[in-house]
Amino acid sequence: MALTQARTMPGVLELLPLDQIAFQRMLDTIRRNYERFGFVPVETPVIEYSSVLLTKTGGETERQVYFVESTGALGKHAESVPELALRFDLTVPLARYVAEHERELSFPFRRYQMQRVYRGERAQRGRFREFYQCDIDVIGKDALSIRYDAELPAVIYSVFRELAIGPFTIQLNNRRLLRGYFESLGIADGEQQMLVLREVDKLDKRGAEYVRETLTGDAFGLSAEVADRILAFVQVRSTSLADALAKLDALGAGPEALEQGRDELKEVLRLIHDFGVPETHFALNFSIARGLDYYTGTVYETTLNEHPQIGSVCSGGRYENLAGQYTKSHLPGVGISIGLTRLYWQLREAGLIGTARSTVDVLVTQMDATKLPAYLALAGELRAAGIATEVVLEEGKLGKQFKYADRAGIRFAVVVGDDELAKHVVTVKDLRRGDQFEVPRAELVKTLRVEIEQAAVMG
Amino acid sequence: MALTQARTMPGVLELLPLDQIAFQRMLDTIRRNYERFGFVPVETPVIEYSSVLLTKTGGETERQVYFVESTGALGKHAESVPELALRFDLTVPLARYVAEHERELSFPFRRYQMQRVYRGERAQRGRFREFYQCDIDVIGKDALSIRYDAELPAVIYSVFRELAIGPFTIQLNNRRLLRGYFESLGIADGEQQMLVLREVDKLDKRGAEYVRETLTGDAFGLSAEVADRILAFVQVRSTSLADALAKLDALGAGPEALEQGRDELKEVLRLIHDFGVPETHFALNFSIARGLDYYTGTVYETTLNEHPQIGSVCSGGRYENLAGQYTKSHLPGVGISIGLTRLYWQLREAGLIGTARSTVDVLVTQMDATKLPAYLALAGELRAAGIATEVVLEEGKLGKQFKYADRAGIRFAVVVGDDELAKHVVTVKDLRRGDQFEVPRAELVKTLRVEIEQAAVMG
Repeated sequence: MALTQARTMPGVLELLPLDQIAFQRMLDTIRRNYERFGFVPVETPVIEYSSVLLTKTGGETERQVYFVESTGALGKHAESVPELALRFDLTVPLARYVAEHERELSFPFRRYQMQRVYRGERAQRGRFREFYQCDIDVIGKDALSIRYDAELPAVIYSVFRELAIGPFTIQLNNRRLLRGYFESLGIADGEQQMLVLREVDKLDKRGAEYVRETLTGDAFGLSAEVADRILAFVQVRSTSLADALAKLDALGAGPEALEQGRDELKEVLRLIHDFGVPETHFALNFSIARGLDYYTGTVYETTLNEHPQIGSVCSGGRYENLAGQYTKSHLPGVGISIGLTRLYWQLREAGLIGTARSTVDVLVTQMDATKLPAYLALAGELRAAGIATEVVLEEGKLGKQFKYADRAGIRFAVVVGDDELAKHVVTVKDLRRGDQFEVPRAELVKTLRVEIEQAAVMG
Repeated sequence: MALTQARTMPGVLELLPLDQIAFQRMLDTIRRNYERFGFVPVETPVIEYSSVLLTKTGGETERQVYFVESTGALGKHAESVPELALRFDLTVPLARYVAEHERELSFPFRRYQMQRVYRGERAQRGRFREFYQCDIDVIGKDALSIRYDAELPAVIYSVFRELAIGPFTIQLNNRRLLRGYFESLGIADGEQQMLVLREVDKLDKRGAEYVRETLTGDAFGLSAEVADRILAFVQVRSTSLADALAKLDALGAGPEALEQGRDELKEVLRLIHDFGVPETHFALNFSIARGLDYYTGTVYETTLNEHPQIGSVCSGGRYENLAGQYTKSHLPGVGISIGLTRLYWQLREAGLIGTARSTVDVLVTQMDATKLPAYLALAGELRAAGIATEVVLEEGKLGKQFKYADRAGIRFAVVVGDDELAKHVVTVKDLRRGDQFEVPRAELVKTLRVEIEQAAVMG
């Protein structure tokens, strides 16, 4: 039979087991923190109706959609778009979910969702066509207090502290303040503001010179002074809560939007502090604009202090109305998203995370096939004590079994031969340290528990 | 703006949060047990190359495949099949994974995988187009001891005992024994055996009369005596380990395949017992044949004793060669699968599982907005102690806040007003029991921990 090549399409991240374990631990950490802050889980189908997914955006997103057709429907859609598609984010499905189940939900609705999304990206290193998003959102019915805008940074802080991937800063801005500031510079037209914001958004990627030239060029026709003021403005960063408040005050009086945005930012910054987030971990950053049509107030980005090249690892903001395309209800919300596949990949590229230990704590080796019932009983005891245990069922040399354990990332191997049985002991081999010791049979569970806990702490 | 109807396609199971929590707890239980037995996680992409997915089977599966096309590729495949498709099970991706990563894996390779799969089923109540499969498989390189066939029932036992959905029986048979038995009845041709097996497989659905008529009809032309022997044979069930062994012996001497199958079954049954599975929870069942082309030795089905109409809730078996279509390596294996979406749905239909408590343990209410910093500090303490805590950030009447908690399935509400602050206490309201009590502020964490643990045990 001719062989088919075993391969996956470009743009997917398929992991070997020890890497999958490392990835799974990150997912678990995120989920644990989301739940700790009182968010409840939601999962939605990967496949949605195209008409539901594609009402809102158009443009780039629509060009990247994966459409789905069952065998029977193949080719039947002719010129039109297929009926089904894969979700490209978790926000549109959330909007659909909340609109569909509105009467059965309690508001404020606080959900987390950690699932994969799909985008037909051009194949390129570090670009993923399938990736995990880990989102939380708080959705209000009719209204939602600005205070929730301060809760999300507290969750981000909790998540990234526990992920232990180095120091990070949650950077905040406010879209209203941005717009008000531009108004004060004479850029009053909403459309024009949007275009300026879009240029300002390129600051990190293209640099100040490029942005200044564009702003003073034909397309915008701003004066050099206004362009310079914009460039100075977007380079503002705060160094403490007091500094942030002072920098907000230093903007001086301005149009209503600026005043509103400033009031919101001040309240949010103060509350973030009340939530227990240290001043070292959040800052004002006037350059942050985020997605342009969607967010209306607070916007967030989170960066790793020692790895700025990674860019934002957790972004989000406040939006005015989640599901206007599906329901007449007014549903304001605030949300953040961690793109975990990309984050994991970048951390691994940067050497910040390695391969995990196995989820398997102990390998019970097979010295003598006739003693299998004793090995199985031993393994049963360990499992009952919550110790993940594999038993070697295949006959083979002990050395080969140790080698298997070592390769599979299993740290402890347990050996029971005639000697051990006669003395009522068990030999435990620590494959990481490369040594071994004897334990009385009755104390094995207790001893291994201590060893495993120590190994987890010491790495 | 015209509204788009918020809806999902038929055949997907989208859950409200409290149901999602119940579902998630089942997933967690399964995963915990899979890990406890030393299986390591793997996830594969939802999208695979059609050429990879569709090499093996054809027939019904191929008619149910969902094909995937990015916007740019739409309509370009003309007559041929689109390049990409959604996986319809986890076994074909496992075969592809093992073949692709063979050199980097340790054998026996013991993986678990819990992901969604897609089938373009006809829309019908209880039929799902998207559903979770929770699989474990042990894959050997060149060979795999029959002992692993006994380990999987031990895992099944552990999973279903902990899922606590009532008494269950793991039923076993052996495809070799089946074929040998048919040979002994003069049905020696492999093709013919397959067809008889396929008829026997219909016994549960169509009944004995239908199967007898088919077997003695023109298509098979078996004698009434042979048909009766087959029907008697497939109704054999054991009541204990000794009974199972006796029933195997009672088959008498037979062709080589029967002897081989019997030896295997005997060893597997004895070992299952050594693995600590009680005799009440596994039995011989000669009617089980499972998928017809795939399994070669041991086959399993698991049924809930009190809900036979649900059918098998966990099935699987031994196969000779996992990935013959992708690699020349010989990779025998044994595996089982739990179709969790269908199982969850059926249990809920049967009234066997209800809505879960929320993952949120405590709601910190807001009596007085000026005391928000104190509420946030309190919540921070609870979270640090591992207690999932939501804080009311929106102002509103206390009664409305309790109502929100109750509706959201949050059992405990914490109230701190002037009285409480003056007395250094906190009022805890138990919304399930409908009573409340005061706790010294310093003892809140300890008290709530005890209450939450009790609530978890008592339900």
